[in-house]
Amino acid sequence: MTTLTSEPAARTGENPAGETGSATHVEFRTQVSAYRHWRLSFDGPVATLAMDVDEQGGLVPGYELKLNSYDLGVDIELYDAVQRLRFEHPEVRAVVVTSGKEKIFCAGANIRMLAASAHGWKVNFCKFTNETRNGIEDATANSGQTYIAACNGTASGGGYELALACEHIMLVDDRSSAVSLPELPLLGVLPGTGGLTRVSDKRHVRRDVADYFSTKAEGVGGKKAVAWRLVDEAVPRTAWDATVAERAKEFAARSERPADAAGIELTPLQKTRTGDEITYRYVSAKLDRECGLVEVTVLGPDGDVPADVAGVHAQGAEFWTLAMTRELDDLVLDLRANEPELGTWTLRTEGDAARVLAYDALLLDNGDDWLVNEIVLYLKRTLKRLDVTSRSLIALIEPGSCFAGSLLELALAADRSFQLTGVFEEIDPDADQAAITVAPMNLGPLPMGNGLTRLQSRFYGDADGLAAAESARGEALQAEDAERLGLVTFAPDDIDWDEEVRIAVEERTGFSPDALTGLEANYRFTGPETLETKIFGRLTAWQNWIFNRPNASGAGGALRKYGTGQRADFDKKRV
Amino acid sequence: MTTLTSEPAARTGENPAGETGSATHVEFRTQVSAYRHWRLSFDGPVATLAMDVDEQGGLVPGYELKLNSYDLGVDIELYDAVQRLRFEHPEVRAVVVTSGKEKIFCAGANIRMLAASAHGWKVNFCKFTNETRNGIEDATANSGQTYIAACNGTASGGGYELALACEHIMLVDDRSSAVSLPELPLLGVLPGTGGLTRVSDKRHVRRDVADYFSTKAEGVGGKKAVAWRLVDEAVPRTAWDATVAERAKEFAARSERPADAAGIELTPLQKTRTGDEITYRYVSAKLDRECGLVEVTVLGPDGDVPADVAGVHAQGAEFWTLAMTRELDDLVLDLRANEPELGTWTLRTEGDAARVLAYDALLLDNGDDWLVNEIVLYLKRTLKRLDVTSRSLIALIEPGSCFAGSLLELALAADRSFQLTGVFEEIDPDADQAAITVAPMNLGPLPMGNGLTRLQSRFYGDADGLAAAESARGEALQAEDAERLGLVTFAPDDIDWDEEVRIAVEERTGFSPDALTGLEANYRFTGPETLETKIFGRLTAWQNWIFNRPNASGAGGALRKYGTGQRADFDKKRV
Repeated sequence: MTTLTSEPAARTGENPAGETGSATHVEFRTQVSAYRHWRLSFDGPVATLAMDVDEQGGLVPGYELKLNSYDLGVDIELYDAVQRLRFEHPEVRAVVVTSGKEKIFCAGANIRMLAASAHGWKVNFCKFTNETRNGIEDATANSGQTYIAACNGTASGGGYELALACEHIMLVDDRSSAVSLPELPLLGVLPGTGGLTRVSDKRHVRRDVADYFSTKAEGVGGKKAVAWRLVDEAVPRTAWDATVAERAKEFAARSERPADAAGIELTPLQKTRTGDEITYRYVSAKLDRECGLVEVTVLGPDGDVPADVAGVHAQGAEFWTLAMTRELDDLVLDLRANEPELGTWTLRTEGDAARVLAYDALLLDNGDDWLVNEIVLYLKRTLKRLDVTSRSLIALIEPGSCFAGSLLELALAADRSFQLTGVFEEIDPDADQAAITVAPMNLGPLPMGNGLTRLQSRFYGDADGLAAAESARGEALQAEDAERLGLVTFAPDDIDWDEEVRIAVEERTGFSPDALTGLEANYRFTGPETLETKIFGRLTAWQNWIFNRPNASGAGGALRKYGTGQRADFDKKRV
Repeated sequence: MTTLTSEPAARTGENPAGETGSATHVEFRTQVSAYRHWRLSFDGPVATLAMDVDEQGGLVPGYELKLNSYDLGVDIELYDAVQRLRFEHPEVRAVVVTSGKEKIFCAGANIRMLAASAHGWKVNFCKFTNETRNGIEDATANSGQTYIAACNGTASGGGYELALACEHIMLVDDRSSAVSLPELPLLGVLPGTGGLTRVSDKRHVRRDVADYFSTKAEGVGGKKAVAWRLVDEAVPRTAWDATVAERAKEFAARSERPADAAGIELTPLQKTRTGDEITYRYVSAKLDRECGLVEVTVLGPDGDVPADVAGVHAQGAEFWTLAMTRELDDLVLDLRANEPELGTWTLRTEGDAARVLAYDALLLDNGDDWLVNEIVLYLKRTLKRLDVTSRSLIALIEPGSCFAGSLLELALAADRSFQLTGVFEEIDPDADQAAITVAPMNLGPLPMGNGLTRLQSRFYGDADGLAAAESARGEALQAEDAERLGLVTFAPDDIDWDEEVRIAVEERTGFSPDALTGLEANYRFTGPETLETKIFGRLTAWQNWIFNRPNASGAGGALRKYGTGQRADFDKKRV
């Protein structure tokens, strides 16, 4: 058994990339002092996040991270920095993302790493990088921390996609620096981190111009890049530092973050991991490799809610909602990266529903507090991470559980849910029956990527069903009522419970994992689409297909041939 | 050289399916007298389309079409029937889709056919069947022909998806008939014809119920199918015929189609096909296999527009817009199925722009005429077919062309467009400069699948650009103006034209065909999403990926193992 408390992200092992799968264990927890690839500095309300990738600092051996190219380890640090800026630095109102190297902003994902990676690794890597970029946009939109891309050199591929996630893109105008998406012409794949969708649907680059741009490996710089809406301004090198500083100041001035607040420290997560168990304070997971199953349990608060918002600040990272969210976030990332064969997750809760609702209420009553705002946004993002996780999610609602408000979202995020009718006679005949509670946290603050609440998604096109479910808020709903209201899928009793749950899990394990991933990706997102759902649905699905085709990943494919001087050997047939 | 005038759809050859590709030539033209799989009958305003698949009538050898399962040949006849009902039968106001066999409505796409098919064949087959089902919905929504699925036996997989495309689904309630989507549990793939999207986004089946339903191979029947919104009514066999007739009468009564109009005959298309040329009256295509290129030319009207709408009826299938649309439709289908290695299409027009606009005006001035309505809807659907065609489209706007109104849509559908500045000095120094004209046909009647016009899609998020382009309507825009307005991509002059066009085409040929398909699928559809774009974008992309994975199509994959009695051998890793 190893106890991991504050390891740096990267831990080497075999190449995770190997087509035979991964024996590398990836940890997502890190801290500023452990960064190898980013430098974080502060100047009043402006933070600067400078990318300066350590060529020798790859997560696994076999490639060098030249020209500020990145792998998962680099992105884990970026994710950590974005999180810490939100929680630890209330004074920061603008974040300048730039490069610590000369002449290059960022060359994107490392190609040798991609070429050597197994399909699943590539897809999981892209998913995490996408989530981090969505988080950058969330900080700009909802946290008063506006991200500015200061491209002091060429931003290509994933480098330009990182810039695209920022609110404002500045490019040095020096006749050589450009922005580009060279994936298609050079590698035979698509940009993997939302590039196409952001070019068309966020920056509104005209489709034919976008098409041309995305086939032009060398990219576009200067005034043309501005005219084509690819960047917001091209700035001569002589005026660069002053203009970046000015722009950062302007964006900072628009923010409503408090000037005099103290941040809270995101203290190292306490985590214990054995071969078959991952345990944090409020979240735990049993890994059943034989059944391909993870049993996740989330505990409700173990103490009374603080009396007021000052108590939230005083507790900081210990405050239940934040602590639980951080643990759940880390667990989801850990399982996705390290346990791809455990395809079904059951979700349980344990605790006092009233306490969960009291914590929710404290948060919702103090939404104008910067820290409270951050906690709710973080919970929102973590639940979204669950929504795009390619594992079957089954919620099990049993006596002693606390699926209320924020924790009810776990059941609503699940592909199916079972709520026990009655009690387990042999275990505790005197227990209270399991109940779920719809509460204000289910009615708006935690939208999915499609912009709808999980209840609105659930009852999409069924206004009556939605109204009935919403108007039951505040009631402790036992199985029969919850089933009638459409809030749970099945409500078996003690006699049938074990058998029904077992069959659901076993059946899931027997199905094609790929088809399940596709099924879930479709059914979880009904109704409207957003930039985010287009990236995770449409764009990602195409990219997955392309990654998996011989034209990209076969021995003669473009991804494998890159850098060899040989041309890829394409099967020319259009599909 | 063969002259093909009215061949039945199916023409045998090698298995198109063979992993090495297809030597089978597929013709999409057919006529009612040649149907092998469908029976069309009429009773006043109600038509009945009975599926009665000839087991031995597969398009290629190697499988039997048992239990009303279908292959591309069966669907070609369905497409033809849907088209003829619209044009030849103005009196038909409701169409009952049912089965001519006992106990089975339709078992979906033939699995042995799918299992033996090459990836590209499967994808193209699904695309065509999707388009036909969208056409059924278009007839219901816009032609006053409401489709009713009368499932007189089990509708499984593609059979249920056919029912889902109908406005009203009736299922016989006999304790054995059910609707089902068994693709995931039995075959390890997704339903390939819009099933998941229609279940969630059209019929609003709750996501967890939909999840359960889609993993339950035997499906759901009777009252439960109604309660779960999977069908609209379950009808006892004793009341079946009467209820179906009643329902058809009810839907027919809502239609505004004329009672006393005469249909027009969709006469056999005149088509000549050689190894390197396909020629119709108004549409032609040169096949350049060495360059992987098809040069498509569409001719404008060769006569003056009829004086009034009676003239449209008198000309019938000879009326230019209809004739040209039929030819373009057939060409797109032919090239997609038969010429997968020709990955780039150039689009040219030739003729008199004023005449094109006069034809457009006659149609738009008579939109309440049923035939005019059908012609415009058919042009809309054909342009949509172009939008989802996985070929790079390059519009070439040269002197003598007539890219105006309806034909300008071809340029707006293209991934890029080139308009010549000046004239070709060596060919015709006295020619008029090429011009394009925005006209009313570009401002609404021909929306894309995303619900926007091609102009709105082009200027998505750029209200000023859209307004400028729209307000230039009626003007003959030469290259400089068209480029300035963002209506064309490039405007080279005589000196640069050949070189620029050649490079664009050659470059396209050198790129990964798969990556181009993904790029185009993303950039062509900006902005909002609809049922249709979700099916062609999200769902199709996932299905393509799943089809391509060893878990489905590998030697041990579910698609290959089906019917062998052996279980599929899945790689359990979730991606």
